[in-house]
Amino acid sequence: MPAEESEMNTAPAPTAHDRTLDVAAQAGRLLTRLRAERTRVHAITNAAAQVLTANLLLAAGAIPSLTAAADEVPAFVTRAGALLINLGTLDGERRAAIPWAIASARAAARPWVLDPVFVDASPARRDLARLCLAGHPSVLRCNAAEFAALAEREPTVEGVREYAAALQAVVALTGPVDHVTDGTRSLLIENGHALMARTTAMGCAATALVAAFVALAPEDMLGAAAAALVVIGVAGEMAGETAGGPGSFPAAFLDVVDALDPAIIERRARVRAS
Amino acid sequence: MPAEESEMNTAPAPTAHDRTLDVAAQAGRLLTRLRAERTRVHAITNAAAQVLTANLLLAAGAIPSLTAAADEVPAFVTRAGALLINLGTLDGERRAAIPWAIASARAAARPWVLDPVFVDASPARRDLARLCLAGHPSVLRCNAAEFAALAEREPTVEGVREYAAALQAVVALTGPVDHVTDGTRSLLIENGHALMARTTAMGCAATALVAAFVALAPEDMLGAAAAALVVIGVAGEMAGETAGGPGSFPAAFLDVVDALDPAIIERRARVRAS
Amino acid sequence: MPAEESEMNTAPAPTAHDRTLDVAAQAGRLLTRLRAERTRVHAITNAAAQVLTANLLLAAGAIPSLTAAADEVPAFVTRAGALLINLGTLDGERRAAIPWAIASARAAARPWVLDPVFVDASPARRDLARLCLAGHPSVLRCNAAEFAALAEREPTVEGVREYAAALQAVVALTGPVDHVTDGTRSLLIENGHALMARTTAMGCAATALVAAFVALAPEDMLGAAAAALVVIGVAGEMAGETAGGPGSFPAAFLDVVDALDPAIIERRARVRAS
Repeated sequence: MPAEESEMNTAPAPTAHDRTLDVAAQAGRLLTRLRAERTRVHAITNAAAQVLTANLLLAAGAIPSLTAAADEVPAFVTRAGALLINLGTLDGERRAAIPWAIASARAAARPWVLDPVFVDASPARRDLARLCLAGHPSVLRCNAAEFAALAEREPTVEGVREYAAALQAVVALTGPVDHVTDGTRSLLIENGHALMARTTAMGCAATALVAAFVALAPEDMLGAAAAALVVIGVAGEMAGETAGGPGSFPAAFLDVVDALDPAIIERRARVRAS
Repeated sequence: MPAEESEMNTAPAPTAHDRTLDVAAQAGRLLTRLRAERTRVHAITNAAAQVLTANLLLAAGAIPSLTAAADEVPAFVTRAGALLINLGTLDGERRAAIPWAIASARAAARPWVLDPVFVDASPARRDLARLCLAGHPSVLRCNAAEFAALAEREPTVEGVREYAAALQAVVALTGPVDHVTDGTRSLLIENGHALMARTTAMGCAATALVAAFVALAPEDMLGAAAAALVVIGVAGEMAGETAGGPGSFPAAFLDVVDALDPAIIERRARVRAS
Repeated sequence: MPAEESEMNTAPAPTAHDRTLDVAAQAGRLLTRLRAERTRVHAITNAAAQVLTANLLLAAGAIPSLTAAADEVPAFVTRAGALLINLGTLDGERRAAIPWAIASARAAARPWVLDPVFVDASPARRDLARLCLAGHPSVLRCNAAEFAALAEREPTVEGVREYAAALQAVVALTGPVDHVTDGTRSLLIENGHALMARTTAMGCAATALVAAFVALAPEDMLGAAAAALVVIGVAGEMAGETAGGPGSFPAAFLDVVDALDPAIIERRARVRAS
């Protein structure tokens, strides 16, 4: 949607150009703050995502923890700045721990992010994801197929915006273009690289950075979520330019995240309002 | 066994030279088809193999899923082209899920592959592997020690062939030389590199590619299993030539798999009939 | 503590210079023996550490196994040379398996090593770690925060030494400088690199090498534990000099471990008595 139209919304959005600069600048600021404040993120995530998630958080400056035991998660969530719940491995341990983790996040007023991996593949998982949504996540991050299964509507810009409004959450629909919306404003992020979809758990790890950024800027969840995806997208395309293929991509990606500075982010970010 | 002798079998085998060309050509064709058809493989595999298995499937063009929850596996297996069962992590979750996964594969007529990791180390595991074999896998992939424990016979060419005939399955015994047999014909694959045994879960990941190839060519399980091991062996030796050691080997291996083309496979494949 | 003072102890320590040479030489000898004897190490470790732990053991010449099923661990521990218990993932499976693993190690007279990860984050975990300590580990490896939570004293050289004496175990407190003590003698190891703390599970993997070395030299647990940490520290600093960042660090580290020879270790080791 061109900037002219978006200005007709009741909540006026900045021009597309301004918004790119806003989000890119916010991405640089939050990355700098993350490195200084070393925010803790507790991630209950799937078995294939644990190492990459922990390493992405470490490369970005955060401190990860990954415990999924029901009697331990309250202590871990309470000392963290944010919680990530990823449904990719729904074993008995995680099923028992997830409700207590969400309850702990709410009790301690910590933002939390839901990643309903493969919710399109199993009815049992979709039902469980909906129960999680009743716990009011700050951000829902999913792909188009997961969105369609969960929201029972098409993953169009309008459909995603409506669902975000209904959830009263930020929805981050990731794909070739990421769409981040709080139900009123929408941001489209065009950074990224094809190799990101050729290595497992890239999206899962990205969601952990969303959680870290939302912990730092709870007053602007939309901007924080978009800023995290800009960091991921910029790092992904820089890594894609140098990696020898999908095997060497994850290491290259983490090296880039570690070395990323605000000026590079501002130069490379491609964000527009919709 | 020289080609002259093998021609005296009731099921006449091609000459060793022909067979190399056959399997190598089949490996190239199946890899090309996998990239086009993006076959799904559901893998219930051990904790140390999950990331490498998912990344190998992605690098080769397939789509992995890894769920091991008993109430979810039927949906995941049914929408996949093939199933891999690896016994490397026998926690309660996987023990509960494995029989339902096998039943789902059989109900949906999907081929499935068994990898009885470390069956030589624990009697409990050997017994469980034998119960799995009662579910008629299409392919059994194991090493010599695992074969000896499971089959209670020597891992000679003849011993493996007899066991495959008894199981009515393809047996792929991997090692410095891989031996793939359906109980009648035997193929020996001499590709590979010493670094493949110096990094964890290489064999486990290889078995997932066997599952993907068998999904594509269920009419020729022997050829498909051998073709997968040729791809792995060729990629392994190419990666071994450039990797700086066992640490950088897995990334190099995945990069090679991603870039591999049929002409390279045909040039490098070393397969002979036995 | 300068060498002059340490000589006044009731158990006279060698001079700092001698001790460096001793430990460095022992590190080279044990690494050479590990490559020849291919010692098995059974590791019940956390989900994020399993791959790196297995790959470090393989790169160093050992043979890893990782099973955490209660009915299988006795067989795996009994055929191994040493056991590692890492509390980083305390799911039901591991909680059930850990006591049987420890009992098996004691019954078979195998040394075992405890790594009480994040014991400072959860009271439940601290209590469980103390129950594990009642099973008399050969070595306790932890960081300063974990030590303080577990031992309820400051992680000073004296505090750690007292705790080691009380436990009748070697305590290896790792950090920018590692402190290894049996309660009488103390060794300080100054090798290492900042990137080691920027990648997940580096300390967990290091502890597995401690287990392997202790299996080879049970008559000198202090020297073996210190030797393992020297190998890790030297390899870490060499990898840190060439790695492009935290993403490429683990692969570089494993490549260095694989290529490390006793002469390099002796040249680079920085060990002093305290």
